[in-house]
Amino acid sequence: MSAIDQLTQEFSRLPGIGTKTALRLVYHLMKGSNDEARRLAGAIREVADRVRPCTICGYFSELDPCDLCSNPVRDLSTLCVVEEAYEAGAIERTGTFRGGFHVLGGHLSPLDGIGPDELRIDGLLRRVGPGSAVEEVILATSSGVEGEATAVYLESQLRPLGVRVTRLARGIPVGSDLEYVDGSTLAEALAGRREM
Amino acid sequence: MSAIDQLTQEFSRLPGIGTKTALRLVYHLMKGSNDEARRLAGAIREVADRVRPCTICGYFSELDPCDLCSNPVRDLSTLCVVEEAYEAGAIERTGTFRGGFHVLGGHLSPLDGIGPDELRIDGLLRRVGPGSAVEEVILATSSGVEGEATAVYLESQLRPLGVRVTRLARGIPVGSDLEYVDGSTLAEALAGRREM
Repeated sequence: MSAIDQLTQEFSRLPGIGTKTALRLVYHLMKGSNDEARRLAGAIREVADRVRPCTICGYFSELDPCDLCSNPVRDLSTLCVVEEAYEAGAIERTGTFRGGFHVLGGHLSPLDGIGPDELRIDGLLRRVGPGSAVEEVILATSSGVEGEATAVYLESQLRPLGVRVTRLARGIPVGSDLEYVDGSTLAEALAGRREM
Repeated sequence: MSAIDQLTQEFSRLPGIGTKTALRLVYHLMKGSNDEARRLAGAIREVADRVRPCTICGYFSELDPCDLCSNPVRDLSTLCVVEEAYEAGAIERTGTFRGGFHVLGGHLSPLDGIGPDELRIDGLLRRVGPGSAVEEVILATSSGVEGEATAVYLESQLRPLGVRVTRLARGIPVGSDLEYVDGSTLAEALAGRREM
């Protein structure tokens, strides 16, 4: 297989990148300076060589424990549980959360053979268990059926440990017109209404 | 800068990839096996090291002259002129063109300082000039204003060399409903109507 076909194939394995986009990327790299392609290849290799999931929280980092788990400024009495590391990144970028994270690595999905043992749940229970400083666990699993089921399961496991268990508020996204919000979101927003 | 930030930045320099998509790609590579990331890095490096524009036609290839220019089965009496190499790739994938290509490397755009000298036009005129076997040049520049201007300029340079100069047909895309086709395309399709 030619170098061009090989790279097209590798690019099109990435999420959201089909054959046409892959080809466009390949042509872009060929058209540009070789430096750009070499820098990209080098940056990918650096990540592959140096970044690992943190053994405590599962977030990706060049350090272990990661920058979040070892940072003395973070308040690790509150843990935010997410399915994937990029969701922790999204919460981190809001700049409003100073607690710790715990990355599950997915959600429960019995049909795909993903049960509690396939997720980083044991580690979470250890972090919250006896002698721990954790006071609150915020469940930020995805809002679909599987995410909800995962949250319900986690709550059943966490509650006996005497920790406060919360989940992210459901409601109207900021800037949305009411008429475009779907019914279940609107129902959740009504049920979760707050004093002004 | 961390390895993750570095790679996010490199990815977001690629066309059509913003910061969010770049982040998603980075997380995908971190989540997957290291092998996948290494294979991608290796494939990019291979392309950077081995692929060059052909000195005759400007198409990208690991050989010089490229597979298209040196292939005895191709009929090089017909040349198809395109702006970018990926457009030659698109025509090639139709499987209906067996002639040669000539990649200009862009279109005339005086406002951006791109005149005839910035494009691979000299090389085209040399390929078509005295003693050449070229009988027809198909202009397949883009259909916008600059592409048209480039085609008109090329025609003025090629015609005196005694070669047949054609351009791709304009008309209704296959499978389109007439009511959704824009007015100028419809006008071109009418003007270019053919006997059944």
